[in-house]
Amino acid sequence: MDLPYHKPLTQQHLRGFGIEEPWPFGIGGRVMFSELDPLNHVNNRSYLAWFENVRIAYFADYGLDDTQGPNPRWVLRATSVDYRKELKLHTDYVVTARTTRLGRTSFTMDHAVWSAGGLATFATATIVAVAADGSGAEPLTEATRQVLIARDGAGTV
Amino acid sequence: MDLPYHKPLTQQHLRGFGIEEPWPFGIGGRVMFSELDPLNHVNNRSYLAWFENVRIAYFADYGLDDTQGPNPRWVLRATSVDYRKELKLHTDYVVTARTTRLGRTSFTMDHAVWSAGGLATFATATIVAVAADGSGAEPLTEATRQVLIARDGAGTV
Amino acid sequence: MDLPYHKPLTQQHLRGFGIEEPWPFGIGGRVMFSELDPLNHVNNRSYLAWFENVRIAYFADYGLDDTQGPNPRWVLRATSVDYRKELKLHTDYVVTARTTRLGRTSFTMDHAVWSAGGLATFATATIVAVAADGSGAEPLTEATRQVLIARDGAGTV
Amino acid sequence: MDLPYHKPLTQQHLRGFGIEEPWPFGIGGRVMFSELDPLNHVNNRSYLAWFENVRIAYFADYGLDDTQGPNPRWVLRATSVDYRKELKLHTDYVVTARTTRLGRTSFTMDHAVWSAGGLATFATATIVAVAADGSGAEPLTEATRQVLIARDGAGTV
Repeated sequence: MDLPYHKPLTQQHLRGFGIEEPWPFGIGGRVMFSELDPLNHVNNRSYLAWFENVRIAYFADYGLDDTQGPNPRWVLRATSVDYRKELKLHTDYVVTARTTRLGRTSFTMDHAVWSAGGLATFATATIVAVAADGSGAEPLTEATRQVLIARDGAGTV
Repeated sequence: MDLPYHKPLTQQHLRGFGIEEPWPFGIGGRVMFSELDPLNHVNNRSYLAWFENVRIAYFADYGLDDTQGPNPRWVLRATSVDYRKELKLHTDYVVTARTTRLGRTSFTMDHAVWSAGGLATFATATIVAVAADGSGAEPLTEATRQVLIARDGAGTV
Repeated sequence: MDLPYHKPLTQQHLRGFGIEEPWPFGIGGRVMFSELDPLNHVNNRSYLAWFENVRIAYFADYGLDDTQGPNPRWVLRATSVDYRKELKLHTDYVVTARTTRLGRTSFTMDHAVWSAGGLATFATATIVAVAADGSGAEPLTEATRQVLIARDGAGTV
Repeated sequence: MDLPYHKPLTQQHLRGFGIEEPWPFGIGGRVMFSELDPLNHVNNRSYLAWFENVRIAYFADYGLDDTQGPNPRWVLRATSVDYRKELKLHTDYVVTARTTRLGRTSFTMDHAVWSAGGLATFATATIVAVAADGSGAEPLTEATRQVLIARDGAGTV
């Protein structure tokens, strides 16, 4: 299968790349030389750039940029990454995202990186909605909650 | 206090920067423009470069490069990061490291980033000793275990 | 036109993206958030990662990895970059490469970055063939010279 | 000599590090692991981060942030880099900056990177003053011109 890069993948493409349900959203990429380190594999921080990238595409696709009013600022509050397989130059990969839990002012996402060899990396990210004026965390809007429940089956805590 | 950068800090410097026991080891730095992102604060992945940097200095200072035989390869297996306060351009900071738990083929470290405003970021990292020929994880040597217990009070699991 | 990313573009795709002859080789990409800086445009050093990336694809496509014997090391000796238009998040772009001049132990390439708005950045790069043992520059092989003349019309100096 | 990092170096420190006149300004640093690439030396784009960093310190030290009115935006218009010696992990270095030529809306700087082994890298950078509203290039103010002539001996073209 030829992997489409940079645009949200269809469910068919996700399944064709071996990514099972309930992963609803993924973006394809290809390892660049600048993402490698002296161990000649993808450096640990390069994955954070990929997770950041897939979240931005996910927020756009889910309409989450619009539901927070003018100038919302989604901020990464915490993350954990489990590096299972190293990745090498020019490897095709897919980075996936889904929201698993809703809090009052934050939500938690799962991320994963997949190559032809299967699951390479698993991660979680806690995202906080910060007021545009920097005055602190804001409650998630009802519209945000509904889209995350409807599309990802996100639970509440 | 003038913060010495890039070299392992003395206990006096650590305490003078407000970093309490039992943190035994830290390296000072200063935020560069290249570490910022469009939100005009230090990007989430820049911290991983700092943790990587302090671990290399820590391994050298603790003699862990020598106890594993020729060409050891310490590999980051997992990490978690808790971003508590954002950091801005030219902020002086200290990144600290200590080993908290020993496994058979891995150990777990705590990391933190401190600025004049106190604790900015807390993180953990699980480090695995991988054989130089890439054949898999190797048991920690007794010398490695002893130095981590003696200097950091690392516990066993 | 839908831009194919990451793989060498056909002449048809290059011309369809408004890239005129004699540019023979290009790779498509899309601006990621991690390539931006606090001015909210692509940072000046991100372009160097793109030029490095297109050169690696070019070397592979032109068979230059094979003509230098075991473990050749192409090293960037000099570069110049002319930043004409800024690029923003998610912009589709093509990075092109061609060799213009052959020296005895080095060759000079032109690079450019193109978006839908036309030429965004122009650059040159001088590449030296360094011996695998690091002992110094090596003369270009006759095979390397011939492929660069045949495909790119590279001149000699 | 112990190299002070991150703060503008005195003339005495510059000369003590083997950096001759007329270089008026430099910042010390130490190579981090994150700046290396798979060739195990400082990657070509890491130098651009250092030049960017020294320019920001230089602008602050020369008062150029204040002379342009509210929200000036110094933009890198062009750069050239000549990589003469590779740099390795933990190498102490100094990055220098001086303005050599004044144009009407831009000025040209020389940069260099120095290690204990002497000159490692030489670069130039053309800087344009862009209006805060993004409407285009602005003439250099007389105050900017005077400080660059007085401190660096910048010529006019």
